[in-house]
Amino acid sequence: MNIVERLLEGDKKACARLISKLENNEKEAIDIVKQLYNRTGNAYVIGITGAPGSGKSTLTNKLTKELLKQGKKVGIIAIDPTSPFSQGAILGDRIRMNDLALDKNVFIRSMGTRGSLGGMSRATWDAVKVLDIFGCDYIFVETVGVGQSEIDIVKVADTILMVVIPNTGDDIQAIKAGIMEIADIFAINKSDLEGADKTKLEIEMNLDLNEKNEYRPPVIKVSASKNQGMRELLEKIYEHRRFLEENNELEKRRIRNSRLQLLKLVEDELMEIILDKSVKDDLLDKLSREITKGAIDPYTAKNRIIELIRR
Amino acid sequence: MNIVERLLEGDKKACARLISKLENNEKEAIDIVKQLYNRTGNAYVIGITGAPGSGKSTLTNKLTKELLKQGKKVGIIAIDPTSPFSQGAILGDRIRMNDLALDKNVFIRSMGTRGSLGGMSRATWDAVKVLDIFGCDYIFVETVGVGQSEIDIVKVADTILMVVIPNTGDDIQAIKAGIMEIADIFAINKSDLEGADKTKLEIEMNLDLNEKNEYRPPVIKVSASKNQGMRELLEKIYEHRRFLEENNELEKRRIRNSRLQLLKLVEDELMEIILDKSVKDDLLDKLSREITKGAIDPYTAKNRIIELIRR
Repeated sequence: MNIVERLLEGDKKACARLISKLENNEKEAIDIVKQLYNRTGNAYVIGITGAPGSGKSTLTNKLTKELLKQGKKVGIIAIDPTSPFSQGAILGDRIRMNDLALDKNVFIRSMGTRGSLGGMSRATWDAVKVLDIFGCDYIFVETVGVGQSEIDIVKVADTILMVVIPNTGDDIQAIKAGIMEIADIFAINKSDLEGADKTKLEIEMNLDLNEKNEYRPPVIKVSASKNQGMRELLEKIYEHRRFLEENNELEKRRIRNSRLQLLKLVEDELMEIILDKSVKDDLLDKLSREITKGAIDPYTAKNRIIELIRR
Repeated sequence: MNIVERLLEGDKKACARLISKLENNEKEAIDIVKQLYNRTGNAYVIGITGAPGSGKSTLTNKLTKELLKQGKKVGIIAIDPTSPFSQGAILGDRIRMNDLALDKNVFIRSMGTRGSLGGMSRATWDAVKVLDIFGCDYIFVETVGVGQSEIDIVKVADTILMVVIPNTGDDIQAIKAGIMEIADIFAINKSDLEGADKTKLEIEMNLDLNEKNEYRPPVIKVSASKNQGMRELLEKIYEHRRFLEENNELEKRRIRNSRLQLLKLVEDELMEIILDKSVKDDLLDKLSREITKGAIDPYTAKNRIIELIRR
């Protein structure tokens, strides 16, 4: 059997191999995604974000177990923010998902951002599509909330779940800095810690400011490690899904996501063409030196490079 | 007198107006930068980064006062991370710089990132160049360390100063996530707080791992609000500058920065052309819908758009 047949039969190894090939930008793998693209659209994608240490992995783990009980097939993609300089992953805790990894209805994948300064790499989107084709009913995309990556999660998710822990001024600060607006559900994890009610209140007050919206994100207290509130949290996800479906919002959101993804692909390809052409001619180096000396201004230099692509 | 003459005579209002015009992407202003670009390269640019609440503004304030005593002209650009969704600035504390704002040798500017998902906007680079032309000896670019923005600061700075406060596990986490590598100097601010020595030790241990480098970033304890260690910190900045200059590293760094800036300009222009053309034809919308339905794959859709630009 070839890799496509094996993928469609639910072979996890074939699935893993295809994603690796996509990470390496192999043409064969991209051709497979192209060929099978009409099989996408069935999976429901849940983005999970939150600061390091907020317990996202444990929470994803527990939600997955709930979904398994309900007979669902689940994919988990954990985005590791890697340094663009050292390319080393900072989170080694994915290993604790191992008890799930053996289940034939769970596929787990950790992906680095590979020094792509844009955060979530194109390969992540591809991986979501592969898991969709693979037959997952639900796909979790878990990312660490350090700025760009939560914003990138918008590009793949149908529902965005933000995990917050009590008593961390930093989290609220982060929420204010643009994350608040993208979350569809807030889960206050480790809610047996002091300050959980205060954190809930703060988030609710912030939400009051956005009352114009038809959908109001629920804020619920949970404790993933104690397995408390997991079923309720899953119910909130289902509720959000129903809201989107009944109001024709799911399609709108997916079209917006496709648009962002398409633009990113275009951007990447254009930059590749540019780098290729301008490095070949040493033009980029030459112009960078001249800009530094003040011998040419960056705007004029830019036009020189733009001309390249039109030839 | 026209705006150029006034700028060159040190008129702060002319300087402010030019930067505003650049923020609004006005052609006239870009033409002025182009025309005066050969006057750039004299200012020394110091990037200041660190978590919210680490006291960056106070520290910048105090360093500026030291520089003023030494007869220097100083520019300060404070980057406010604004939400890409609400476009509201989260930091209102710039106001405390007001006592400096009246000094004729200080120019202070707060800039939003204007929903540009890339963090630091092109206008920031332009503002640095305007302050350079304006005659500033030193320019501080202060940004809040929330991921992308510290990485963007690399694109403009000659020296990068990272401000850390004691006893915050989060800071160390952030440092590990890629910031460590870009800092040239570490200032442990509020160092009268418990844990300052421990934080210093942790940073030093991290630096030990990078011993291969010729230059080792100093880690010094300061207290900006108590005006302690400011002269020493300034001396460290001078030392780093001397190191760069004596080893021909300053030019290399500036060429690298020019290159990043040039690529960003190219990228922005290409995306503008693409959006312009594809929105006109409704092509982007049409393709995004088809991708969502699975009627076309994103790679084929991308090629359709790339063809546009070549026409």
